[in-house]
Amino acid sequence: MTAPPVLQSHAVVCCSPVTAGVLDDAQAEALARMFKALGDPNRVKLLSIIAASEGQEACVCDLTEPVGLSQPTVSHHMKLLVEAGLVAREQRGRWAYFSIVPGVLDSLAGTLVSR
Amino acid sequence: MTAPPVLQSHAVVCCSPVTAGVLDDAQAEALARMFKALGDPNRVKLLSIIAASEGQEACVCDLTEPVGLSQPTVSHHMKLLVEAGLVAREQRGRWAYFSIVPGVLDSLAGTLVSR
Repeated sequence: MTAPPVLQSHAVVCCSPVTAGVLDDAQAEALARMFKALGDPNRVKLLSIIAASEGQEACVCDLTEPVGLSQPTVSHHMKLLVEAGLVAREQRGRWAYFSIVPGVLDSLAGTLVSR
Repeated sequence: MTAPPVLQSHAVVCCSPVTAGVLDDAQAEALARMFKALGDPNRVKLLSIIAASEGQEACVCDLTEPVGLSQPTVSHHMKLLVEAGLVAREQRGRWAYFSIVPGVLDSLAGTLVSR
């Protein structure tokens, strides 16, 4: 038996649309959790840096300078983005690498477009 | 001279894409402000109720029961959605009516889609 890929748990389909009927409580919770993770200028900027990086992936060591924050603070913001399912984290030796979960931003965009 | 329409100040084009280059501080602030307003289950649900209402407009008197909150609490959440530029408010006699700012959710969705 082989272990499942590390990133599998993040590959959820997000979320019920805001614009296609009244959301129930669970749907509203799931969606708000993602938007809340994006509700901070530093996290939005970090996400844009990762999205603009080669392969949509960046080492934490390349994220601190552009946002002007300490590595522990950047790691805290990245943890919230990972917990929200927007970003995946992979440890490679000394450094953590972060990538956008494939398709998640498109899925989130799809919850906002008019029907 | 005539006064500008009340809703004009909300009719801003939102925002710079997350997925098309590194955001500067002002762009990140503007985007995070909108996402923060959506980062609460009650506000997401209220928005879905308005979006599902006829003409994408709802009286505050029709919003309290579906979310099970008091009118002052609903009014507080609606104020945050208005301040974020997502919703417009119009007073008609006794009641406030809320509508989705035309195009704003599509614009916000456009900041997340892959390029």
